[in-house]
Amino acid sequence: MVKGYVPVGLSNRHVHLSKAHIDILFGEGHELCVFKDLSQPGQFACDEKIEVVGPKGALTMRVLGPARNETQIEVSLADGFALGVVPPVRDSGDLENSPGAKLVGPKGEVVIDKGIIAAARHIHMHTSEAEQFSLKDKDIVSVKVEGKRGLVFDNVLVRVHQNYALEMHLDIDEGNAAGIKNGDKLAVI
Amino acid sequence: MVKGYVPVGLSNRHVHLSKAHIDILFGEGHELCVFKDLSQPGQFACDEKIEVVGPKGALTMRVLGPARNETQIEVSLADGFALGVVPPVRDSGDLENSPGAKLVGPKGEVVIDKGIIAAARHIHMHTSEAEQFSLKDKDIVSVKVEGKRGLVFDNVLVRVHQNYALEMHLDIDEGNAAGIKNGDKLAVI
Repeated sequence: MVKGYVPVGLSNRHVHLSKAHIDILFGEGHELCVFKDLSQPGQFACDEKIEVVGPKGALTMRVLGPARNETQIEVSLADGFALGVVPPVRDSGDLENSPGAKLVGPKGEVVIDKGIIAAARHIHMHTSEAEQFSLKDKDIVSVKVEGKRGLVFDNVLVRVHQNYALEMHLDIDEGNAAGIKNGDKLAVI
Repeated sequence: MVKGYVPVGLSNRHVHLSKAHIDILFGEGHELCVFKDLSQPGQFACDEKIEVVGPKGALTMRVLGPARNETQIEVSLADGFALGVVPPVRDSGDLENSPGAKLVGPKGEVVIDKGIIAAARHIHMHTSEAEQFSLKDKDIVSVKVEGKRGLVFDNVLVRVHQNYALEMHLDIDEGNAAGIKNGDKLAVI
C-alpha cells in the first residue's frame, strides 16, 4: 500500500564543519558564505571547499552550512575507495569508530580521528506531512522505484521535525543503482 | 518465498571487442592474452587494456575475452558521467542508439558510433540450476539484500544456458548501493 510520494535529493560528497574547524581551515572568525539554499530549511551549500586527504587519495568537497557541533564528512562507498578508507553506513551524527582524515583549507589544516561516514538513506518530513503519511519520527519504511532499474529500498529511516521539508536523501551510488535523478517522486510503501 | 540463493559478481567497467577492432587496436592477427578466468565458463579477463575517450573525459578499461561479434563497452552511470555520455541501461548485445566513443590501443585507434551501455542486472544460471529454481530463460525475478543498506532488486533478468554458471551480475553502483561485495549470496524471491 502506498502511504504517499516523496521527492528525491541525491547527495554528492560533502562536509559539515564545527566552528573550531572553520576557524582553523578558513581563519579565525570566518563566516561561511551561502552559495545556494538547500531544500531543508536553514541548510545551505557554501562557496567554501576543502580538500579531504585519506591514506590513498584526496577529494575536494563542498562545505555545507551552518556549522555543526561536530565535523562530519559524508561520502559514497566509491569515494571511500578513492580516499582509501571504508566509511561505515551510519545515520547522521553517529561517528564513533568511523575513519578520520586530514582536512586542508586555504588558511590551515587539521587531522580528525573520526567523521567519515556513508549516510544511511532517510526521509525528512515536516510534522504535518508525517501525519498525512501516518508515520512518526524514527519509523522505518520501504520506498519503491519503478523502471528498468526498479528496486525497493528497505530500512529507510523517517526523520520528523517541524523544521524539515519532505525529501528522501540518497547518495549518488544509490541514485545510479535505481536510475533516478533529483526531484523524482518515489512511493513510500 | 525464497527460490534459492545466488552469489554476486560485481562488474567494473570493461570492454568486449570484435575481432576487427582487436586487429586495429592491438595489431593484425593479435590474440588476446588470458589474465584471469571469469566465473562464466570460457570467459576471461585479458592482460590488454584500452583507453575509451568520450566528449568529456577518458577512462582506461580492461578487455574481456573472447572476441565478440560486436564491440560493447559496459560502464556504470558514474563512469558515463566521467566520459560525458549517458549510457542506456540495456541487456547485453542491445546496442542500438547507445553512445559511441573513440577507442585507443597501443597499435591504433577506432571511432565507434554506438556500444556504450550500463548493463541491466541479470542472473546467469546453468540449465540444471534453473530447474532447481523453477525458472526458465528470460524470466524476471526479484532479489533481496539484507542489512543496513537492505533493498530488493526488481526486474532481474534470468539467463539460462548449459554454458552458464550460477551468478548474479551487478555493476559497482548497484553493489555499493546495497552494501554488498563479490561472492555474497542473495535470495531470489
